[in-house]
Amino acid sequence: MTSDSGAAEPGTIEPIPAAPAAPAEGPLDPAALDRLFRAARTHNAWQDRPVADRTLEALYDLVKWGPTSANASPARFLFVRTAEGKAKLKEALSAGNIEKTMTAPVTAIVATDMEFHERLPFLFPHADARSWFAGNAALAEETALRNATLQGAYLILAARALGLDAGPMSGFDKEKVDALFLAGTGWKSNFLVNLGYGDPAGLFPRSPRLSFDEACRLL
Amino acid sequence: MTSDSGAAEPGTIEPIPAAPAAPAEGPLDPAALDRLFRAARTHNAWQDRPVADRTLEALYDLVKWGPTSANASPARFLFVRTAEGKAKLKEALSAGNIEKTMTAPVTAIVATDMEFHERLPFLFPHADARSWFAGNAALAEETALRNATLQGAYLILAARALGLDAGPMSGFDKEKVDALFLAGTGWKSNFLVNLGYGDPAGLFPRSPRLSFDEACRLL
Repeated sequence: MTSDSGAAEPGTIEPIPAAPAAPAEGPLDPAALDRLFRAARTHNAWQDRPVADRTLEALYDLVKWGPTSANASPARFLFVRTAEGKAKLKEALSAGNIEKTMTAPVTAIVATDMEFHERLPFLFPHADARSWFAGNAALAEETALRNATLQGAYLILAARALGLDAGPMSGFDKEKVDALFLAGTGWKSNFLVNLGYGDPAGLFPRSPRLSFDEACRLL
Repeated sequence: MTSDSGAAEPGTIEPIPAAPAAPAEGPLDPAALDRLFRAARTHNAWQDRPVADRTLEALYDLVKWGPTSANASPARFLFVRTAEGKAKLKEALSAGNIEKTMTAPVTAIVATDMEFHERLPFLFPHADARSWFAGNAALAEETALRNATLQGAYLILAARALGLDAGPMSGFDKEKVDALFLAGTGWKSNFLVNLGYGDPAGLFPRSPRLSFDEACRLL
């Protein structure tokens, strides 16, 4: 991102400098844990409050650091925020996802570059990682999907870390999104994430979670 | 988690109460963004510093709140921390992943419950979500893998939020892990995450990332 001499676009989160010293030990403060996990919700209604393109750059500047296998970084993010883009996306949405997506300031299409290994000579320069995948389509596909999905989760949590709310969705016609947005790219849609500032009035009651004993084992 | 009257086990992160008020607006402080994303690294060597079982409970108490499709929560986490468990896991590891995994205080096997939809009457009580998946094996498998992978990413970032370091890996024999650890459960291994307190001396130089213009589109 470049620095601006003029006034910032509304909805801009400016670049955030690195902390002056190494992070302190121990957990983040309770408010940060609430923001990221415990009080965060999947939003269905949105405040009339913009999200600037520079904020999307700040968002990617967090997401990109999340770990992936061999640093393969296979996710691609299409940030749909114009009326034209939203109208195109609408054609592919499940009925229940239309209104919240049309009213969200931005909808991210989290996509997977199925040819991600072509970037490995740059991304993983200390070994011939490209060759691990170029001749093994099954491993390449599995690696692409797993790691692009991890990066989609990083997007959700990075949005929350910036003070945005996220609304992830998988109820859409993937083939249609691929045809409308990704033709000729070698990218495939994975899931969608609405981004903006949620309106708590649109929240459903929170659903229960599995207990530690139901979901975990100590071995 | 229950409260303890005695002294805490070494390596215990005690339960963290909710913040007294709603989280403030705007981004988390720079040190938190560094901790979660910008300064965080995939660790290969570990300090001789324990991770208590209660810390793993505190970890799951963050992870469980992350969003999944229809709140399906298909991930299962096996925390391997005994010598016996580690020795069993060793048989399934790629050569390059053995030493760091044997020396990590805990290795999480992130698994996927392929029968996750049997829990939907509890997890998503306001609709018959079980029926969406019970008769559609392809949708069930895709949903299980995508959402368990998202939850694996939540595990990585929740560990960092608690001040732990994470070392995710996919270099292992999944069939062997399934046979050794998951026989009879209906769960399948997805990836592994070493957990502990990293030793910076074991870090490799950081690899480059794709620029915004390479990985993103504004539409």
